[in-house]
Amino acid sequence: MDKKVWLTKEPIDPNDCIEKVVRNEAGAVNTFIGTVREFTKGKRTLFLEYQSYVPMAEKKLAQIADEIKTKWGNTDTAIAHRIGRLEITDIAVVIAVSTPHRADAFEASRYAIERIKEIVPIWKKEHWEDGTKWLGDQKENKSYAKNMPSEEDMDHD
Amino acid sequence: MDKKVWLTKEPIDPNDCIEKVVRNEAGAVNTFIGTVREFTKGKRTLFLEYQSYVPMAEKKLAQIADEIKTKWGNTDTAIAHRIGRLEITDIAVVIAVSTPHRADAFEASRYAIERIKEIVPIWKKEHWEDGTKWLGDQKENKSYAKNMPSEEDMDHD
Repeated sequence: MDKKVWLTKEPIDPNDCIEKVVRNEAGAVNTFIGTVREFTKGKRTLFLEYQSYVPMAEKKLAQIADEIKTKWGNTDTAIAHRIGRLEITDIAVVIAVSTPHRADAFEASRYAIERIKEIVPIWKKEHWEDGTKWLGDQKENKSYAKNMPSEEDMDHD
Repeated sequence: MDKKVWLTKEPIDPNDCIEKVVRNEAGAVNTFIGTVREFTKGKRTLFLEYQSYVPMAEKKLAQIADEIKTKWGNTDTAIAHRIGRLEITDIAVVIAVSTPHRADAFEASRYAIERIKEIVPIWKKEHWEDGTKWLGDQKENKSYAKNMPSEEDMDHD
């Protein structure tokens, strides 16, 4: 796999991202892993579904890696996001950023997860004990009552 | 392996730490990985050696995990630190902290690496192209010209 950012229906191994960014110039790798949590505000999740328009999502992930390089300079970034059905504790996303020194690795990794939730077209359907709901953008500012969002909904950045 | 914090002479797989902290209540895992960097302030490192008084170091690592639980509440922390000879890009330390929400995972993981460098008795010997040096505490505020630090030197916290 040559890509440094990708979507996949298969389980993600954090090492797939970490190994892509470890290098002679780096002394620090920060990895953020998002996992499926059972309870949110007292509500029990049974499982989740993520859907995405893959080519657009991968383009946006690549944009985030570029933004990090512009902001922090000597960085290398790998991001994998899973789609499809995920069970409780499954890994939904892995971000790995390597930098010479640790402060930058922490900041850039944090930046990456916030940007993923802002600009990457990946939608989450929550399957709760008492029903389901498509959540809109991952910041959850927008919800879609019945269906997947339309292509127009994805024209933001 | 039941321990959640440990020292080892073997290569560390980040998954060894990550798997110990993934759990139903957590939606976020932050992992910090320290690797051996080739250049520091223009000086080329050939390889490193870490030495430690293992029981005391593991006790201090456990203390850091406890501090994190006290400060951030619902957390789970695993830390592995390698000792012995390490080559360029080898993993020296892995920290994984899981929390319900991501902000806490980033903060607690950052706290852990700073505390490791402050209070854990692990010494680094740099092997440069032009010589060697035992570095003192990992904050590098203190250096030991010739030898390993004495037991008295380790009586700080």
